[in-house]
Amino acid sequence: MPDSSYKKVAAVVGVGPGLGASVARRFAAGYAVALVARRAEYLNQVAAEIQKEGHEALAVPADAGNSAEIANAFKTIRERLGDPEVMVYNAAAGPFGSLADISPEQFENSMKINALGAFMSAKECAPAMIVRRHGVMLFTGATAGVKAGARSAAFGPGNFAKRGLAQSLARDLGPKGIHVAWINVDGSIDIPGRKIPGKTSEDMLRPDAIAESYWHLAHQDQSAWTMELDLRPFKEKF
Amino acid sequence: MPDSSYKKVAAVVGVGPGLGASVARRFAAGYAVALVARRAEYLNQVAAEIQKEGHEALAVPADAGNSAEIANAFKTIRERLGDPEVMVYNAAAGPFGSLADISPEQFENSMKINALGAFMSAKECAPAMIVRRHGVMLFTGATAGVKAGARSAAFGPGNFAKRGLAQSLARDLGPKGIHVAWINVDGSIDIPGRKIPGKTSEDMLRPDAIAESYWHLAHQDQSAWTMELDLRPFKEKF
Amino acid sequence: MPDSSYKKVAAVVGVGPGLGASVARRFAAGYAVALVARRAEYLNQVAAEIQKEGHEALAVPADAGNSAEIANAFKTIRERLGDPEVMVYNAAAGPFGSLADISPEQFENSMKINALGAFMSAKECAPAMIVRRHGVMLFTGATAGVKAGARSAAFGPGNFAKRGLAQSLARDLGPKGIHVAWINVDGSIDIPGRKIPGKTSEDMLRPDAIAESYWHLAHQDQSAWTMELDLRPFKEKF
Amino acid sequence: MPDSSYKKVAAVVGVGPGLGASVARRFAAGYAVALVARRAEYLNQVAAEIQKEGHEALAVPADAGNSAEIANAFKTIRERLGDPEVMVYNAAAGPFGSLADISPEQFENSMKINALGAFMSAKECAPAMIVRRHGVMLFTGATAGVKAGARSAAFGPGNFAKRGLAQSLARDLGPKGIHVAWINVDGSIDIPGRKIPGKTSEDMLRPDAIAESYWHLAHQDQSAWTMELDLRPFKEKF
Repeated sequence: MPDSSYKKVAAVVGVGPGLGASVARRFAAGYAVALVARRAEYLNQVAAEIQKEGHEALAVPADAGNSAEIANAFKTIRERLGDPEVMVYNAAAGPFGSLADISPEQFENSMKINALGAFMSAKECAPAMIVRRHGVMLFTGATAGVKAGARSAAFGPGNFAKRGLAQSLARDLGPKGIHVAWINVDGSIDIPGRKIPGKTSEDMLRPDAIAESYWHLAHQDQSAWTMELDLRPFKEKF
Repeated sequence: MPDSSYKKVAAVVGVGPGLGASVARRFAAGYAVALVARRAEYLNQVAAEIQKEGHEALAVPADAGNSAEIANAFKTIRERLGDPEVMVYNAAAGPFGSLADISPEQFENSMKINALGAFMSAKECAPAMIVRRHGVMLFTGATAGVKAGARSAAFGPGNFAKRGLAQSLARDLGPKGIHVAWINVDGSIDIPGRKIPGKTSEDMLRPDAIAESYWHLAHQDQSAWTMELDLRPFKEKF
Repeated sequence: MPDSSYKKVAAVVGVGPGLGASVARRFAAGYAVALVARRAEYLNQVAAEIQKEGHEALAVPADAGNSAEIANAFKTIRERLGDPEVMVYNAAAGPFGSLADISPEQFENSMKINALGAFMSAKECAPAMIVRRHGVMLFTGATAGVKAGARSAAFGPGNFAKRGLAQSLARDLGPKGIHVAWINVDGSIDIPGRKIPGKTSEDMLRPDAIAESYWHLAHQDQSAWTMELDLRPFKEKF
Repeated sequence: MPDSSYKKVAAVVGVGPGLGASVARRFAAGYAVALVARRAEYLNQVAAEIQKEGHEALAVPADAGNSAEIANAFKTIRERLGDPEVMVYNAAAGPFGSLADISPEQFENSMKINALGAFMSAKECAPAMIVRRHGVMLFTGATAGVKAGARSAAFGPGNFAKRGLAQSLARDLGPKGIHVAWINVDGSIDIPGRKIPGKTSEDMLRPDAIAESYWHLAHQDQSAWTMELDLRPFKEKF
């Protein structure tokens, strides 16, 4: 029986106007939410909106690809809110391009944001979760983590690495009571204000709908946990 | 915008004291439930329990591996309750055994119950769902559908076939508004009254917990549907 | 150390003018070859060509989807040539079509030719291979066995089943010295005399090239066996 | 029809006493071989052995995880031998350990040696191969690139990344005439002089046997290329 006397904290790493903000808003209904991303101004705006709804939210600016910044961000979260019960790693980075297009620096950057930041975020959260024998880590992935296309010479390996990490963590931490899942968000997310030529909103994933499945995952009974899950619009080819 | 003026019907094919009964009970909260399985006596008992809770339930005895019986069962369901909005194919059959152990008849029987019955159930439900542009088909699978072990010479191919069928249906019917998903139930289900040597209830999947994820799947927003999902106890090796 | 005093026999089940004939011709260089398929006339013609090259070949007409005929065919092979050292299961059956197009009979037929015939052929060959602690079973698959498309409602499940069978056999029989492999032939085979609209021979797999990889598989050192392999034209999208 | 007037060069990145040396020796039969690895002394010894057999070999010391050193190494190879026709990326790095065991530096190092070095090696070789419309890139992988275990928190993501890279390259470069393949070496390699407790040589992969399949891959007809292949001892559990 896990101890539930502590305040519940959810940390979302990678918060932009799409999925990150939706996940933060959804989890604010049951958790004090920490928002981690590079752009302080945007984070503050989302945090303020959440607070206006009467929930607790903390903006913690940090670059997901920088391991020292991530370590600092989680130190701040622990001090200000407490140990995260839920950690959602939602940071991702392109660019798209084939071998000829991608520089070594871009390749390394993809590995840092897609994989190293995920590793660091897990490393920062795991110890307290292991002590409590309870916790959730969700990693936002993409189809490029299952099947890497010709123009995914950097994004593909980064997403594969993130998926491999999630699998390793699930096998390590599951028996310790920590639910690790990797979500393949297969399709374009319908980000408010963004238009994709040739796509209507019916062709895209609504970020609030994705967040609903994240919430479901985070609250599955420990006798029936999901490790991998795909999410795609009903019209999406796959 | 799908038409929702009709009475909602959920058909569960394969109802035993484990997952099938839990799924039927869970969906009874929002649907008139049809129960299809071989053992009439047991079906009547589950149906009676559901009715006692004030919900609608219909027992329809039929052998999942017999295509004529499945066709008849769905005819009965349509006449007595209406077109199913949700179809859960939960029938499965062993036996376990290696190539040397399994007879051709056992192999064929595994194909019939694991695959042909699933095909028939989908075929019976699809036309009305296509007209409504709305519907859900969930197929209970197992790890043997992803990785077939040495003693899975019949169960493995049957489960692979069921998974291949679900994929084909998802690609065909998704754009027509029908949500098809395959669930890998990876582990032993904690069936009331059953003891598995060396396993405590902590090592097994609670059928009600599985049913909760089936319910979630059946009600995902059509912008973010799951096609494949695994479910396993937190302690399960995989 | 396996006994190699016996005459080496290779049985090819499923011999048409494409891959089956190429495999038979390739293996005739080192094995007495048994050819199993429905069309006696065509089998006799291929057997005669092989014999003209100075190799041993035997035509054994049988329907791959009929378990009694397959059992009889292998009885004939054992009596006339000896126990097969290599068994290549190359039979496959469509038809292509979505759920609405495929009848239950067509579905069952796909399961019989793609899966039951493979099971029977393995069952007939395994006992002698186990005694010798040596043997090879190769199963010709297709991408539909990994990813079943919308029009693969029968072909997909049949191919999934064949792949699940091969996996189960590999795990069962590998440690007994029998090399089992499944080959994903991903693309159109350039069958002599067949034209596919919009495709040049550069877009297709040359059957002799496929047969070369089958030969390689059949002769891999037992310290480094392949279980799954894909083969596709350099231009093929995947 | 590719131009074959040039001298054929094979570059092997990652040469230790196991697979790398076997691959180099095998390809020396048809190619001038460049050997790239950190340990100059060992490289010189392997190169000398190959030269003694009458073949051409060049030792090029470089650290596979350092992109500048890899760029320099390929510059040297081009100047001294010519453009590689075959590139085998065989470098790999652990360490094994779970999330708690692995430092951020170790994680980054795994990404560099397993993925960045592979990216750099491909980037250096691709332009000349594209001009010739001919070339081969083989990437040595491991089961950790398909299924990452609890103690694979660094090795797993690195191997996943390498596999994702190979997939992306195959889709990009295949239609340009360059054959890219990823090989899952699933098991322990029987390295001369190394003893693994509880394992006999029968439980391990012979490096010369692996190299034989690399040779086969490198010479498949372009109408039937393999992208992914597993290799394991007949006794290996999988």
